[in-house]
Amino acid sequence: MASFEVSILGASGGPLDGGNQGVLISTPGNPLNKKYICVDAGSGLRQIASMIVSQNGNVSMGEGCRSDPIESFYERLEEPLHSFVDSRSEIVRGLGPDAMLESNETVMNGALRIFSNMNEYYITHPHLDHIAALVINSPACLATEKVLWGLRTTTEALRKHVFNDILWPNLFAQNKMSLELHTLDDYQSHKVKSIPNWIITPLRVSHGTTVETQLPCLSTIYLIQDKITNNAVAICGDLESDVISRKRWLANAWKHFSATVPLERLKCILIECSCSNATRDEHLYGHLSPNYLIHELKQLSRAYGKPLDGLQVIIMHVKMSVGMRDPRLVILQEIRELAAAQELGDVRFSIALQGYTFVL
Amino acid sequence: MASFEVSILGASGGPLDGGNQGVLISTPGNPLNKKYICVDAGSGLRQIASMIVSQNGNVSMGEGCRSDPIESFYERLEEPLHSFVDSRSEIVRGLGPDAMLESNETVMNGALRIFSNMNEYYITHPHLDHIAALVINSPACLATEKVLWGLRTTTEALRKHVFNDILWPNLFAQNKMSLELHTLDDYQSHKVKSIPNWIITPLRVSHGTTVETQLPCLSTIYLIQDKITNNAVAICGDLESDVISRKRWLANAWKHFSATVPLERLKCILIECSCSNATRDEHLYGHLSPNYLIHELKQLSRAYGKPLDGLQVIIMHVKMSVGMRDPRLVILQEIRELAAAQELGDVRFSIALQGYTFVL
Repeated sequence: MASFEVSILGASGGPLDGGNQGVLISTPGNPLNKKYICVDAGSGLRQIASMIVSQNGNVSMGEGCRSDPIESFYERLEEPLHSFVDSRSEIVRGLGPDAMLESNETVMNGALRIFSNMNEYYITHPHLDHIAALVINSPACLATEKVLWGLRTTTEALRKHVFNDILWPNLFAQNKMSLELHTLDDYQSHKVKSIPNWIITPLRVSHGTTVETQLPCLSTIYLIQDKITNNAVAICGDLESDVISRKRWLANAWKHFSATVPLERLKCILIECSCSNATRDEHLYGHLSPNYLIHELKQLSRAYGKPLDGLQVIIMHVKMSVGMRDPRLVILQEIRELAAAQELGDVRFSIALQGYTFVL
Repeated sequence: MASFEVSILGASGGPLDGGNQGVLISTPGNPLNKKYICVDAGSGLRQIASMIVSQNGNVSMGEGCRSDPIESFYERLEEPLHSFVDSRSEIVRGLGPDAMLESNETVMNGALRIFSNMNEYYITHPHLDHIAALVINSPACLATEKVLWGLRTTTEALRKHVFNDILWPNLFAQNKMSLELHTLDDYQSHKVKSIPNWIITPLRVSHGTTVETQLPCLSTIYLIQDKITNNAVAICGDLESDVISRKRWLANAWKHFSATVPLERLKCILIECSCSNATRDEHLYGHLSPNYLIHELKQLSRAYGKPLDGLQVIIMHVKMSVGMRDPRLVILQEIRELAAAQELGDVRFSIALQGYTFVL
């Protein structure tokens, strides 16, 4: 039985606006009182509404969506879904079968209902493409309690530079809203309040350096573990390889994975790969390219002491560059070729597609 | 001959993310070296790409797009375009006929080409739904010079709270990018560098008060005047009525309009109307409802000393609330009924529709 549904609200790494990184995660089943958490919020309520439309307009399960046309702005205006997704991955259009509209419910009301069942945001870092939707959606939080979680650098940035009555109304003042901001500690596991079976652990990683002062720019990997099944999924914020950062933060994360989750229970890693291998190191700006992604997965394999057979790796945050071929397809091909050459094991690589749900 | 093309990159007032207020403005003709300016940037490069797709996929001019299906999340999933747009307004799908793809050009490259011909942003206020796209698009500014213009409160917020190496890399440091930030003075007209016929004047308006300290929250109307034809168009940021603010800022703006632009040369006002008349004053939060919009247009009519015959008023920034009927249609109906009752003159009211260009 599946343990996680991972709905891709957005996966773009820019410079296109809209459709930026945001992931809704839930457990399959229990449609009447289904709860969700959100990791990052570059996309939000609008995409929930769009996903309700796409699945209600044309319900499609299992194999049914493999030929769906995926929007592309390159050599063709559409590419088939199967060009982006490993043939063994289970993927469904929209939010999945538990998110159907109730009778006489409008799409907007259905989207607000699902949104009100998402009570916890876990933010990887405060760059605008990872938080814009939670800010713009925040007036819709009136009806339900929501908590924003993050490492201190993230929560401080949200308090000081976003909900500061300049960029956005200070919704924490005067208890205007049921919105709270709480800080997590690095490597301290934390109980997900709305989904009691889950614990979530933030692992600090490097996302390059600031431009002006060359200080470290921090980001987070969230490791979500189901205490009942022991299954786990990892959702990564933007990050760079230890080779570039000259820190051991990713090595430590992989060590933590191998110490706390048996490989066969690690259902999936959602990880960025913003740039193709044509990108020079000095233009990575705190991101991964396929060479560095495969290097880091090799480190993960070493931490486990075996090949990563059966692991799903879903690629997020591809940057849309110039060129004839869709960069997502370029990067996926580079990754698959390198993985085969490096004997990484039978890893299933897919691209995170906005509007679809991976069932893990 | 038309003087302005006003392309709606986004018009939503939230709480849906994506499709937020952003308007691209240009002069008709001159497709080879067409220049644009952007007023607000809640939507940007992605919508330019989508508009290229929509107009290249199915070119439609004049009457041709009146039956286009417009996405709605309420009683129907689509409403016809003519339900939103005055029958006498000239509207075209996409960016207009001058924005066709060149041969062998991908949509992404075409979007970046048009983006590179937009060299000036004029921002009404720094709320995130009006600036998110310019931030997320900024890595695509590498190739071309762009200037961000705004009143001091806007440019200070962008420098201190956005491009601060916390919410976003400080792209102004070390001359990393060809991106500059410059301050405009209230009521001082300013020459648009990239479109030499145009002058633009920022007029300060009130957008409610801050939550914590109850200080005024400022916004801007941009009045764009063509020096050759004397035609003008006004693009408003979020704003509230003088009745609510108890200031005379809108009265002053209307006085400036009537003193500098003959009514028959004022081609259009794009103005917000976020909330329906069902909204209580204390829940307007610095926005207009139809009652207050019509009150202010009546003040404009008084400033001109005559009815506003022939004026186009395009409604921006409608908030998507719960309910069965699309709030844009509710608000448009309320506005038209009030305008008729108040003898405002023969004003043409339309809703700003994302993905379409008004030819004025």
